[in-house]
Order: sequence, then structure tokens, then C-alpha cells
Amino acid sequence: MIQRVNRQIVLAARPTGGPTAGDFKPGDLAFVEADVPAVKDGEVLVRNLMFSVDPFQRTVMGNAPSETATIEIGEVMRSAVVGIIEETRNPQFSVGDHVNGWLGWQDYAVAGGPGLRKLDADAAPVSTALGVLGHTGLTAWLGVVKLVEPTPGGTFVVTNAAGSVGSLAVQLAKLKGYRVVGIAGGAEKVAYLRDELGVDAAVDYKAETFAADLDRALPEGIDRLLDSVGGSTFEALMPSFNKDAQAVIMGQIALYGRQSTQAEPDRLPDLLNLIQYRKLQLIGLQLPDHFHAYPEFLEGVAPLVANGTIKYREEFVDGFDQLPDSLHKLFEGSNQGKLIVRA
Amino acid sequence: MIQRVNRQIVLAARPTGGPTAGDFKPGDLAFVEADVPAVKDGEVLVRNLMFSVDPFQRTVMGNAPSETATIEIGEVMRSAVVGIIEETRNPQFSVGDHVNGWLGWQDYAVAGGPGLRKLDADAAPVSTALGVLGHTGLTAWLGVVKLVEPTPGGTFVVTNAAGSVGSLAVQLAKLKGYRVVGIAGGAEKVAYLRDELGVDAAVDYKAETFAADLDRALPEGIDRLLDSVGGSTFEALMPSFNKDAQAVIMGQIALYGRQSTQAEPDRLPDLLNLIQYRKLQLIGLQLPDHFHAYPEFLEGVAPLVANGTIKYREEFVDGFDQLPDSLHKLFEGSNQGKLIVRA
Repeated sequence: MIQRVNRQIVLAARPTGGPTAGDFKPGDLAFVEADVPAVKDGEVLVRNLMFSVDPFQRTVMGNAPSETATIEIGEVMRSAVVGIIEETRNPQFSVGDHVNGWLGWQDYAVAGGPGLRKLDADAAPVSTALGVLGHTGLTAWLGVVKLVEPTPGGTFVVTNAAGSVGSLAVQLAKLKGYRVVGIAGGAEKVAYLRDELGVDAAVDYKAETFAADLDRALPEGIDRLLDSVGGSTFEALMPSFNKDAQAVIMGQIALYGRQSTQAEPDRLPDLLNLIQYRKLQLIGLQLPDHFHAYPEFLEGVAPLVANGTIKYREEFVDGFDQLPDSLHKLFEGSNQGKLIVRA
Repeated sequence: MIQRVNRQIVLAARPTGGPTAGDFKPGDLAFVEADVPAVKDGEVLVRNLMFSVDPFQRTVMGNAPSETATIEIGEVMRSAVVGIIEETRNPQFSVGDHVNGWLGWQDYAVAGGPGLRKLDADAAPVSTALGVLGHTGLTAWLGVVKLVEPTPGGTFVVTNAAGSVGSLAVQLAKLKGYRVVGIAGGAEKVAYLRDELGVDAAVDYKAETFAADLDRALPEGIDRLLDSVGGSTFEALMPSFNKDAQAVIMGQIALYGRQSTQAEPDRLPDLLNLIQYRKLQLIGLQLPDHFHAYPEFLEGVAPLVANGTIKYREEFVDGFDQLPDSLHKLFEGSNQGKLIVRA
């Protein structure tokens, strides 16, 4: 073992910059060094190799437009991680096993068995445990397959469709027989959705022709929506909901750029009208409520990833010290595919 | 038969006055005279005695903040009616029977059997077929008993609680074991809710202390809501929704006073947050979807009305020609109890 110091990234201060995604400052997250923890009976020591970068990590820092529980000052940043077992006092794990767990932004973690999942590096690259076969994949699968009633032939809209959740969601929706419309920002992402992922229509929300493009993309309205954006994108979709439409709400990235003092039309009455007159169903998705479905998700999706039916992209950044900047980058939307930092 | 001319109130023009409840002018509804229709085999001729006055009647005139289907120009105003059979060619009905049906604002109507319900004048006053044992009662029962999951001991909030739907809803919610909070406008209505209907707390939305009064009335938040008001009342309730709360949306009276160009904070993102983080369920209620439940409703509620457990108020206005003004009056909120016009 070359390095036995445990570098950690902890919350040093809650962001106060303002309601934007880039509002946290370098000093809000601190690099600290701790001892490598001792391993007790039933536990293993994991050296963390790859760290997930996700929007919720800004949220758990506090002062965010969200009700997600925050981490404490001094606490290690919450994160899904892929690591390798360096020491084991649990007969279910051997030294050298690759594992996936919620081990945080730190070099080492000690864990008991229940929170860890052993990975088969021959079946799929271990990095997929943070993306298409990890919590982002589970999110997409819940939104498309589990939380809504199937209506094959209906129109399924996905926002942030070129993102790590969205890009799996559009493919699953196609496989389920929907007409699929993806919304994303910029020509490159739209081309990726159309040419690589095979959506029926891709719409660029940054284009000046967005409203007209959206109209053209939705000749038969919206039956199902998986939304992580909210804001003006959600509002642009509202008039198109068909009777008995279902919308899964899994986040509102748009809120991070919103000025809370802004005066604008109140769209809440329009939404209540949709609920009353079109029987629109809004379904909240919070991942921790559904971790128990992970085996069922893997059983359905892992074979499709292994045989190449489902495509995915990963973007790797090297260096543990790059984690805070990578979180900023995520909110700029400039990454292509699941953002993963390698130690 | 003294009078054999069939007076009718028909839609002459769609209201254009503006987005307020009193926006329709006398000329928008026209009094016309038609022949009394002939009775064919299987039909009966009903002389209409009592007419219901309901918010949806403004809505079906068109240019309203609603997606309810409108009636055509020249069409008789849609209305629940209590009448008496004057002529019958249907063996299920006899001359002199009291019946309830959707026969419109007119003196006479010919109807087949299926849309008519025979009333037992000994069991309850026939006027109750337009109120507590009619479509308004059915609405309250659906919202309290059928569309939400029961959580006895939880807090059930009803807006417009002294209205014809609300006043039954609060009583049903008490009988189901909820802590019941009624919201209404003005000291008289608040006193009625507290002293006559036995709610646990009554809050006056017109009071300057509304926000503080509401806080005090909801020490344990909101588990269930039956709302027909929307607007600032709904928005004042939003922060108090508990996890897994359910809200039945059956109308937005507040929209009628709303200026559509008004700039105000957009509350839609807050509502989406509640859906995601507190799993708030919003359930649309449109009565025509539930007419089939009428027998079940009557079976449950009619005995409670007959034995005096459930209280109700009716306000009668005399004269067919008073119908349009009565509809105005309804939106002013000055009526006490179910508003019924007698021919």
C-alpha cells in the first residue's frame, strides 16, 4: 500500500453565494486528511477508485432550492463510489474484489456487508456501477418502467435527455414502444439524441425556435414525462399534456438559476387546472425510497447493456482533487455522459 | 295545467367582461319561450319546480379559466333540477312523482327513464336532491371518503368550508375521525363552522391575521385537503403539507378574480418541490366521472341526513326570472347554504 493517508472532502461551510448552481465557493468544500480507519469483524477496508458526481451533491450542501436532507459541517461528501477491497474481515468479500457503495468522497472507507455490492469486472466495466448500471440508471428505469402505467404508442418526453439519467430513459422508452421526444440544450446533444440514441424527435431548448420546434415534435401531445429540469421547460410542456398524462418529477435543475425575487406569471393555477381537467398525475421520485428495486433493475437492464442494445457515455476526470470543480462543471451542462472522477 | 309555455334561459353570448365571476352581463343569458315538447313512448313530461345554482354554470358559458366543455349559443343552461311528472308514457313513473335530473333552466323537460331519479318526499325534503343528497353532496363525499386514503387522526382541511360542498365535507371528515380545519370568508361563516358543524378549527381567510391563524390551526400540518378555491388560499396552505399528503382539487374559484397579466411569484416550482420531496398527491375531481357512485353515496349519507346527524342549509330564491342574478350572487359568496331557485 503506497498511500495510507485518508484524504477526504468535507463540507466546510454552507454555500451563501446565491441561488445558482455555481454558488458554492472553493472554501465551502475542504480537503482534510484523516487516519485510515481500522477494520472490525464483519467489515472490509475499501480503497476508493472512482467517484460519482451528481446534482444532489450540491443539494446536500444546504441553502439549495430543495428539501433533501443536508450533510453536517465536517461530514464527508456523500457519493456513490467504486472501490477495491484492500483488507477483509468479512468472509463474503476477498481482497481484490471490486465493490460499489455509498462510501463518500474519500480515499478509504470501512464498510459492513449490507451496503456493498460486489461487481463482476468481466460482465461490464466497473465504472458502469456509477452510471448506466448504478443509481442514475436505476433512476431512469424507475421513471420509465416502474412509476408510470405503460401506454405503448403514446408519447414519452424526457428532459435533460442527453444527461446520464435521460440518455438511458429515452432508450428504455423506445424499447417499451413509446414515441420518444428528448429535450436537451445545444446542437451537439440534439444530434446525439437523434443519431445515436434513436429518439423520434429531439428539441433544443436553447434554440430561438424552441416553442415552434416543440409544437412540431408533439403532434399528439404528451402522455408520459420524465422531468429533472422544471422551470420554463416544464412550463413550455404544460399545454401539451393529454388526458390522464403522468409526469415523474425527479428534480428541478432550473431552480438553481432562478432569482427568488423575480416577478413572473404564477403558473400554479394552470397546473391545478391540468390536474383537475386533464387528470394529470404528478409523481415524485426520490431515489432512496426505491433502493430495494435495485436487483430487479439490474436483472432487466444489465443484459441490455452487456449485449450493446443500450448505449451509454462516460466522461472521466482524473485526480481526487478535481472533484469540487467537476461538480461545478456538471451544472454548466458541458459534460458528455456520466461524469466520473478517478482517484 | 295553468301554464303551458316553456320558458327557457339560454346562452345568448359568451361573457367577455373579464376574468371575474360577475363578468357575465344580463344579455349573455336570454329568456326565450318554446313549446312544451311532446312526450314519446318511454318518456315523461316533467314540470320543473326547483333549479340548482352552481359555479360550473358560469364555466359552461365559456371564456372562463377552466377546461370544462361549454354549452352552445342558444342552448338551455345546464342544471340539476327537481320537478314533478305531469305526463307519463313510461310505466316506471306516475303523474305526481317527484324526480331529480339534469333538465336545465326551463319550465318543462321531456326525459327518458335513465337520467331521472324518483324522489321519496317522505324520506327527505325533495330540495335536498339538489344539495346535501344531490350533486354537491356527492362531490363532498367523493373528496372525503372515496378519492383519498383514510388517515383517521390526521388533519383534514376544507376550503370554502361553509359552502354547500364544504359544509358536508367537514361533517363527513369529522365522522371519519379526522381533526378538521375549515377555511371560509367572514366571521359569520367561521362561527357557523365552529358552533354548528363542530370543526376543530375554523379560519377566516379574509382576516388580516389569516397567516398566523392558519399556523395556529395547523400544529400538525395537513394530511388531506379538499380544495375548490385555489389561488392565495391554496398557496398559504402549501408549506404545511405533511409527507404523503393528498389534496383533492375540484375547482379554483379564486381564478375568477385574477388578472391574467398580474406579475407575481411563480409558485409552480414550490408545488413541484412538494410533489418530489413530500410525495404530495394531487387528485383532480370532476363530477361527471363519478355519477356511477351515486347509489353508494346515497346509501351512506341519506340515513345520516334523515336522522339529523348531518346538518345542512338551503337558501331559497323565488322566481324563475331570478336565476341569472342568483348565479352572480353565488360568486359574491353572500349566500348561506345551497342556493336553490324555485319556479
